[in-house]
Amino acid sequence: MQTLKVIYDTDPGVDDAMALLLLARHQRIELIGVTTVFGNADIATTTRNALYLKQKLGFAAPVAEGAGAPLVGEPDAPPTFVHGKNGLGDIDLPQITATADPRPAHQLIIDLVKANPGEVTIIAVGRMTNLERAMREAPEIVGLVRQVVVMGGAFGRNGHTGNVTPVAEANIWGDPDAADIVFGAAWPIAIAGLDVTQATVMTDAYVTELAAAAGEDGAFVRAISAFYQNFHRESAGLDGFYVHDSSAVALALHPEFYKTETGAIRVVTEGIAIGQTIIKPDGRSYPPGAWDGRPSQTIAVGVDAEAVLRFYRDTLMG
Amino acid sequence: MQTLKVIYDTDPGVDDAMALLLLARHQRIELIGVTTVFGNADIATTTRNALYLKQKLGFAAPVAEGAGAPLVGEPDAPPTFVHGKNGLGDIDLPQITATADPRPAHQLIIDLVKANPGEVTIIAVGRMTNLERAMREAPEIVGLVRQVVVMGGAFGRNGHTGNVTPVAEANIWGDPDAADIVFGAAWPIAIAGLDVTQATVMTDAYVTELAAAAGEDGAFVRAISAFYQNFHRESAGLDGFYVHDSSAVALALHPEFYKTETGAIRVVTEGIAIGQTIIKPDGRSYPPGAWDGRPSQTIAVGVDAEAVLRFYRDTLMG
Repeated sequence: MQTLKVIYDTDPGVDDAMALLLLARHQRIELIGVTTVFGNADIATTTRNALYLKQKLGFAAPVAEGAGAPLVGEPDAPPTFVHGKNGLGDIDLPQITATADPRPAHQLIIDLVKANPGEVTIIAVGRMTNLERAMREAPEIVGLVRQVVVMGGAFGRNGHTGNVTPVAEANIWGDPDAADIVFGAAWPIAIAGLDVTQATVMTDAYVTELAAAAGEDGAFVRAISAFYQNFHRESAGLDGFYVHDSSAVALALHPEFYKTETGAIRVVTEGIAIGQTIIKPDGRSYPPGAWDGRPSQTIAVGVDAEAVLRFYRDTLMG
Repeated sequence: MQTLKVIYDTDPGVDDAMALLLLARHQRIELIGVTTVFGNADIATTTRNALYLKQKLGFAAPVAEGAGAPLVGEPDAPPTFVHGKNGLGDIDLPQITATADPRPAHQLIIDLVKANPGEVTIIAVGRMTNLERAMREAPEIVGLVRQVVVMGGAFGRNGHTGNVTPVAEANIWGDPDAADIVFGAAWPIAIAGLDVTQATVMTDAYVTELAAAAGEDGAFVRAISAFYQNFHRESAGLDGFYVHDSSAVALALHPEFYKTETGAIRVVTEGIAIGQTIIKPDGRSYPPGAWDGRPSQTIAVGVDAEAVLRFYRDTLMG
């Protein structure tokens, strides 16, 4: 089986940490870099959390700090009601001894992609700010990346349309300008939006079983997800929580778990629909418009949720 | 059975004419006014067509000419590739002897609503321009209308998202500012968008059968729909055509044919998503935003298409 060299661009974040655990443990993943971005918490907090995860999970890849604000304007207040004040469900954190790479995130991305032409998969589960800056400063990397797999957006399939507004998902809404640029570049992008991440739920029973069966890693998942689960219960009446960022890992390794569509993608950057992701499906014709001339990208519109949940558990159980 | 007093606000338009035929023939409809608006053709043409239909179909209701341009900006070029150069599929038109009411459309709406408080259903199947002007000049009518039933918009259900852009339907896109105002007013609105109108198709076989069974009316439907059918075949590969405007009549008379949802509705008035209709479903909570404080309206999200087609045929066959 082919090994995937992965750069993980992330804003930990409870589900970010769960996906990073998956990347650290999976046999087919070679984690070569972790880059941080503001989002689920401010940039100092997400970087601190990534460094904590580096020492806790024991991976060797460098952690580099990225953007603390979107391409345009100021960052919004972090959603502490979702991820806790410390971004990791308010678990107790030890002294952090791991240290960050001296390079900024976008430079680490550029260096790693150039050093591994055609081989790098970027799994991006936060704002697209670092990716936009990397491709702006080194446009040649667009042709050198194997694939960009994104957790973000909502395409309205299956009734999943937005979690910040009726049409916008948080990652894309948090920097719509960067996302519109990144999705318009000619690297192959696959997107796991709310259409599939909200269709994949880890129930209390699932997490309890994982905690019992998967040793220290399982216990860790249970510990960091308790606050997150409580948010889902109170806001959506859900017995469990949505599998957001780990869905991007699943889509990268197991595209066969997903039903996909292709088309040109735009992100709304103004007005009441700001942050909405809109696809013009390939083969559908409209009068000339804002989607013309954009590359065809891939979105996941359906998922075998049981397969994703099995994949997560089996990976942690080795 | 209760009779519905109906004002029909329309831009004929092939499917507009087919819905007007339905209104003229249905036993439970008392057509009290027809108001015209630009859209499927320019305002002179849609008014001429409404007057032609008055003499052809033999209804007594006055026809009043309305807006020739949207609330903001200039009208777009009429879609002659859909409805023909004359707006009625380029059938031969006779000399028109019927004459228009001297009042502008919005004034006729105001007068009729005030004369029949609580009794009038406005079936609006074009741009919302006349309705916006009527409610602006006489805000009290908002509380006097029984129901506003609209053909317009697309809410992304069932994969039907837009016909002018990937997210915008033509009627709403043609005057998004007026639609946003009208949908935010506190009259009860029910909307048949592309979600249900594109799920209801009159096939060649259906029209042929109708032409054979429903006398002069059936022959008229076949004559005016030939051009329209050809457009659907060439643009969408469809054996038949979508039942747009008649779906609003069906929704007004037979809400039981439809599955509905309720929520606050906004229309995007700027940017790439301009003309998109967005509902915040009742019961779904989001951070404070642009949908707050708007009235809950009703949208059709599913349809018993066979029932709608039977209803149309049965009405024409008396």
